[in-house]
Amino acid sequence: MSQQENKKVIKVGVIGAGGRMGRMLIEATQDNPKTTLSAAIERQGSSLVGADAGEVAAIGRLEIQIVDDLKAVISDIDVLIDFSLPAATEQNMQVCAEHNVAMVIGTTGFNEQQEQVLATASEQIAIVYAGNYSTGVNLSLKLLGLAAKAFGKDADVEIIEAHHKHKIDAPSGTAYMMAEAVAEARGQNLKDVAVYGREGQTGEREAGTIGIHAIRGGEIIGDHTVMFIADGEVVEITHRARARMTFAAGAVRAATWIVQQPIGQYNMQDVLGLND
Amino acid sequence: MSQQENKKVIKVGVIGAGGRMGRMLIEATQDNPKTTLSAAIERQGSSLVGADAGEVAAIGRLEIQIVDDLKAVISDIDVLIDFSLPAATEQNMQVCAEHNVAMVIGTTGFNEQQEQVLATASEQIAIVYAGNYSTGVNLSLKLLGLAAKAFGKDADVEIIEAHHKHKIDAPSGTAYMMAEAVAEARGQNLKDVAVYGREGQTGEREAGTIGIHAIRGGEIIGDHTVMFIADGEVVEITHRARARMTFAAGAVRAATWIVQQPIGQYNMQDVLGLND
Amino acid sequence: MSQQENKKVIKVGVIGAGGRMGRMLIEATQDNPKTTLSAAIERQGSSLVGADAGEVAAIGRLEIQIVDDLKAVISDIDVLIDFSLPAATEQNMQVCAEHNVAMVIGTTGFNEQQEQVLATASEQIAIVYAGNYSTGVNLSLKLLGLAAKAFGKDADVEIIEAHHKHKIDAPSGTAYMMAEAVAEARGQNLKDVAVYGREGQTGEREAGTIGIHAIRGGEIIGDHTVMFIADGEVVEITHRARARMTFAAGAVRAATWIVQQPIGQYNMQDVLGLND
Amino acid sequence: MSQQENKKVIKVGVIGAGGRMGRMLIEATQDNPKTTLSAAIERQGSSLVGADAGEVAAIGRLEIQIVDDLKAVISDIDVLIDFSLPAATEQNMQVCAEHNVAMVIGTTGFNEQQEQVLATASEQIAIVYAGNYSTGVNLSLKLLGLAAKAFGKDADVEIIEAHHKHKIDAPSGTAYMMAEAVAEARGQNLKDVAVYGREGQTGEREAGTIGIHAIRGGEIIGDHTVMFIADGEVVEITHRARARMTFAAGAVRAATWIVQQPIGQYNMQDVLGLND
Repeated sequence: MSQQENKKVIKVGVIGAGGRMGRMLIEATQDNPKTTLSAAIERQGSSLVGADAGEVAAIGRLEIQIVDDLKAVISDIDVLIDFSLPAATEQNMQVCAEHNVAMVIGTTGFNEQQEQVLATASEQIAIVYAGNYSTGVNLSLKLLGLAAKAFGKDADVEIIEAHHKHKIDAPSGTAYMMAEAVAEARGQNLKDVAVYGREGQTGEREAGTIGIHAIRGGEIIGDHTVMFIADGEVVEITHRARARMTFAAGAVRAATWIVQQPIGQYNMQDVLGLND
Repeated sequence: MSQQENKKVIKVGVIGAGGRMGRMLIEATQDNPKTTLSAAIERQGSSLVGADAGEVAAIGRLEIQIVDDLKAVISDIDVLIDFSLPAATEQNMQVCAEHNVAMVIGTTGFNEQQEQVLATASEQIAIVYAGNYSTGVNLSLKLLGLAAKAFGKDADVEIIEAHHKHKIDAPSGTAYMMAEAVAEARGQNLKDVAVYGREGQTGEREAGTIGIHAIRGGEIIGDHTVMFIADGEVVEITHRARARMTFAAGAVRAATWIVQQPIGQYNMQDVLGLND
Repeated sequence: MSQQENKKVIKVGVIGAGGRMGRMLIEATQDNPKTTLSAAIERQGSSLVGADAGEVAAIGRLEIQIVDDLKAVISDIDVLIDFSLPAATEQNMQVCAEHNVAMVIGTTGFNEQQEQVLATASEQIAIVYAGNYSTGVNLSLKLLGLAAKAFGKDADVEIIEAHHKHKIDAPSGTAYMMAEAVAEARGQNLKDVAVYGREGQTGEREAGTIGIHAIRGGEIIGDHTVMFIADGEVVEITHRARARMTFAAGAVRAATWIVQQPIGQYNMQDVLGLND
Repeated sequence: MSQQENKKVIKVGVIGAGGRMGRMLIEATQDNPKTTLSAAIERQGSSLVGADAGEVAAIGRLEIQIVDDLKAVISDIDVLIDFSLPAATEQNMQVCAEHNVAMVIGTTGFNEQQEQVLATASEQIAIVYAGNYSTGVNLSLKLLGLAAKAFGKDADVEIIEAHHKHKIDAPSGTAYMMAEAVAEARGQNLKDVAVYGREGQTGEREAGTIGIHAIRGGEIIGDHTVMFIADGEVVEITHRARARMTFAAGAVRAATWIVQQPIGQYNMQDVLGLND
């Protein structure tokens, strides 16, 4: 690759490089043709500091040593991907804002003060902030809203989700997000219309309700189907996650997009062009 | 058609010719290349006695007048199809037994005495007696038993059924039959292992349970899917009813089969060759 | 219903009242709570002129006689639904424009002059003009475009359609429309990227192609599934037509919408609010 | 575990312990509660001879050294699993026959002489010999035959298979096996009735044909659906492979079964109890 072309490659830093999500982010960064890993950061005291990031991620030596200080490597980074904990992300936002480095944040659970830091940083740098970086899930949520509006009260909505046998609660968070997307588009409060399972003398289906059904079995990573059942036709929107890697790949996709955006805060639907 | 070929056609009599099922049986009899309607019987006092059976069934004139006395036409019949009421079927079985006419019976709700008449008749003529004449449902029940045995405890079983919004109970009778086929093949009592819907802190899936989920919406005639979810693979068996006519067609198929059988009582799985 | 409420009912005229589509439009008009049949028109010379429109449609007497002159009943009509032939629709557009009556047009095959009459009429009255009035199909086309944009080149697209065994061509027109919606959203020419069936030594899948597969069997009315297959996740959008009546119901829905719109030409995606 | 219980554990030897399938067989052996790895064999000259079998399989130290001579460990083995090459398997069959050790063989491509060695060995020991050890695939093949017989000519059969974008041929071997199971049950020659893809003016569907459609995209491991489409109902049998591990687990399941069988040759359908 010529020096000219080389400049086009987006340099990505990854926070929490030794964790499960961090390792997948490193692999996804190397897999994406537009990005390359330029820095890998772990918390102070981790035994992985000093190790090669590629070897830790089991994708072969990358000659990128894991460090414990973001500032020491910030000048090597075009965009920082941070799926860690609120307190760490709070500090990282301040460092990035100071050095004009874009961010992709997947950390959840911000308190009020951390939300404020995010808002302030978003006035200085471009940030993607989302709870779920899967292209398919974000797309599906958008499609569901449109479908709910188009059918209005003419379609009965039923949601079927399937997850592995070890899952200890039901329905899944994603199923709730989908049900809420439908309810919101129809001007409903989900609590008033959700129905979980049917048995016995149920009577006729009440118009406007949303049935939610949780399949459990084997090692299913996560499937979701939303049915819009009208009298003479049915539309189904299905999402199947086949590998957890897809969430990391979505974050790297967001990284390639955010480096070209004006200062501001964005979500994954912006990245996917669904809000245009 | 030459006279020779004509003799091969199976002559079918239909009980309850003016009812909803009777009309479909007449249409199915005319649709099946091996059968022809030779007699149509209604209860005494019906305003349809004397009308043309084809016109009543809205398939065009057949020159078969509806009569109110089975004995008057019994000599024209190779096989009688009877989806009526227990008391009527009881009398019809006696007439058929006396005249050596085979029967296909879809009447349900026999009392002990009527069961006894059936048993006695089955020693004189060949009778198919079944609660459901759909090829697909009977086939599916057979397949489910085999699948349950093959997977044993290695697969988690989940059943999803879908019916129209007017259905007032759940799950469907067919879903119960399917769940029982699985439970029986695994040596379980369905009541001990059935789970209807999941919500909240459910804990991990309990091994050996059978999840049963009832979708309701629109005008769905009846779909059933049974999933066998093993760790690394899934087998699904799905039945979709697209037209109620299929039950009538199954009964006519049974009629073409029973005329070639020795005296005895048979069910729909016998007709389909699933018990060979 | 009080006289006040009665005034809110939308009065619908139906062209081609004795034809197969006309009969379904009459039934759908009576089924929709917002509309009532106020006029039924057939071509001159039809033996059905003078008959009761409800009886012709097999939904019971409506006391609306079928007439052969639109002008004779135009003052009774709020909106005219016209699924007929180009030459007839051309005249009907002129009558409606003159009398300020809105239209829902499902006629296809306009020549240049007829297109011009449509354009002129659209400057005088409000008209919905669409090739397919199914809510689900129009919705699906919209969703497909969004999905294709969101996934870009990261997903492989495969389309599976299923129709009855009597269909003499493949793929279906709707499958083509869906494939074109995807190709257009990705800036492709469908002809360059469509792949129909795979057999033998095909080599690896070429990126950017769209596989199109035609299932044929039984009496399937029309099912379509479009799969977006990314590396770690799959999104599927499925449409199932369960009754042809759904197209008539969509046209009547368009009728209830168009009576409240400003002068202009609209399509079914406008009716469904998909272009807002 | 008491010494008594310990004796019930089945001791498994694995041929080709360092290969991709061998590693999965080792993991599957340790995962199955009835089996334990007791010996691991590689070809002479492999650099892995002497290494710990568990470490090679990345499941942690098992204290089982990989050896290069089956005879040296044959006395530690209740059942030998052999997915290797015909020449090696030929020798292994002779060793097992001599020492009364049962076998599970997944090796393919035997020549006539090797088939003869297999036949001879099967008169001395109990052997499972199969081309595919997936429970689901073997079950599906059995179900397909039954479904094809039950529906006879009343159902149109269509097969849809989906695999990853890297697959260079179509349809899949499993799809062919499924098509053959249907054709055989209906007394057909697959070559005469297979249809691959439909485009253009196809004419009506020819009765008795079998449509086979190959979806390609992403990283799909392997999905197969066979549809039996009758006029008023549809039965679908679907198999989804979610992990290649399932084939290894099936072989270990066969191992637990074969140790209790009389001398003879068996296939995977025998193991699954599908031929009872």
